[in-house]
Amino acid sequence: MTGSLVVLGIGPGPARWITPEASSALAAATDVIGYRAYLERLTVSCEQTLHGSDNGDELQRARAALELAHAGARVAVVSGGDPGVFAMAAAVFEAIEHGPAAWRALHVQVLPGITAMLAAAARLGAPLGNDFCAINLSDNLKPWPLIERRLELAAQAGFVIALYNPASRARPEQVHAAFARLRQHRAASAPVAFAKAVGRPDEELVLTSLGEADPRQADMRTLIVVGTEATRRIDRPAGLPWLYTPRRVDEAS
Amino acid sequence: MTGSLVVLGIGPGPARWITPEASSALAAATDVIGYRAYLERLTVSCEQTLHGSDNGDELQRARAALELAHAGARVAVVSGGDPGVFAMAAAVFEAIEHGPAAWRALHVQVLPGITAMLAAAARLGAPLGNDFCAINLSDNLKPWPLIERRLELAAQAGFVIALYNPASRARPEQVHAAFARLRQHRAASAPVAFAKAVGRPDEELVLTSLGEADPRQADMRTLIVVGTEATRRIDRPAGLPWLYTPRRVDEAS
Repeated sequence: MTGSLVVLGIGPGPARWITPEASSALAAATDVIGYRAYLERLTVSCEQTLHGSDNGDELQRARAALELAHAGARVAVVSGGDPGVFAMAAAVFEAIEHGPAAWRALHVQVLPGITAMLAAAARLGAPLGNDFCAINLSDNLKPWPLIERRLELAAQAGFVIALYNPASRARPEQVHAAFARLRQHRAASAPVAFAKAVGRPDEELVLTSLGEADPRQADMRTLIVVGTEATRRIDRPAGLPWLYTPRRVDEAS
Repeated sequence: MTGSLVVLGIGPGPARWITPEASSALAAATDVIGYRAYLERLTVSCEQTLHGSDNGDELQRARAALELAHAGARVAVVSGGDPGVFAMAAAVFEAIEHGPAAWRALHVQVLPGITAMLAAAARLGAPLGNDFCAINLSDNLKPWPLIERRLELAAQAGFVIALYNPASRARPEQVHAAFARLRQHRAASAPVAFAKAVGRPDEELVLTSLGEADPRQADMRTLIVVGTEATRRIDRPAGLPWLYTPRRVDEAS
């Protein structure tokens, strides 16, 4: 008997950002696996088994999910945001590659979701309106010098930059170092936004500039958007200014 | 009397990828504006006015939408994918910035959607599992030398690269030039995927490598994912191999 495994994203916040496809897959699962804080957001039936975990050891969680599927369960692995962006999908395929051959015969599907960067951008205006990149600032799985190199090259390329996982108590100084590196290649006037808990009741948006950005604004639930020199601020009578990055670039930077 | 304007994304394909938030906003609109091929995908009520347009002049479409909203309509501007990624949101804010002051007082909202890159990645496995960038290959609004410079820096940074709008009849040679540029900085063995019409009945996925990628595989409905040297292919008994980019990087490249 062989089950199935679906890796799905529930978006960064509210149920209104969960796709119908992900909702259907969740409802059809016998077993739902994920970080406990994500599972708490979901409506599940009493016939489903929830496997809540801490926010660590994604590879172990992936293996547990694959074992359940191999044993015949219909398993849903739940990520926040999109499962393919700094979330569970890569861990599942890593587990498959290094796991028993039988796992390669399982029916595995990844279902896309709204990643934090898209939700934050929508709340801010259209800051990702030109070419952009997404960088995970966590150095749990890659060396910090590589992150700094990527920041530099991204700034040189003129990418709008979305920074995921900007801080934790364990590494408060890294956002500071990241901004310092960006300032070497991008004007202090470039707009920066801190988007915390987007779509949640405690959502908080802070607009500032690269020169004045305070790294202490960031926590683990914050997505940072670093605009380019071309990114515009539109003041309006009420509410935060809108940010957008024009589609047009008139000359090579 | 002042109306409202919502800029929403319907994802790259099927209704199962449209968020409940976007569906609600569509249903509440008095006027729906967008590229005709997107409007044809939607279920609308006979009380709604559809304003279908060609796939050009986004700024003119944005202005028309703002005028309607200013006149009191509840307007929905429809984008494929996510409205903030190479779609209508930036055009709307550009129109606002350069339009009458009254437009800044309108109630404008952007609602996120599933952008093609996330949908394609989900169908392929988890190729965006590490840092990545999105580059619009169209040189309608920016100079080609800038695009080539961004490709080079992105390759040097070790980003997985998602290429939007890779080709049209008017510029068949540019994908070729883009691959040539990438090959100067990335191994020929790096996996490349052409994801055409993802989520649609005529979806087509082609896996190849940077060395062997044939630019003629790309058309206007294709999203190209260029993996890094670290991106893995997992062969399986049936179906295309899965692609994923490991979360871990052991040394600075």
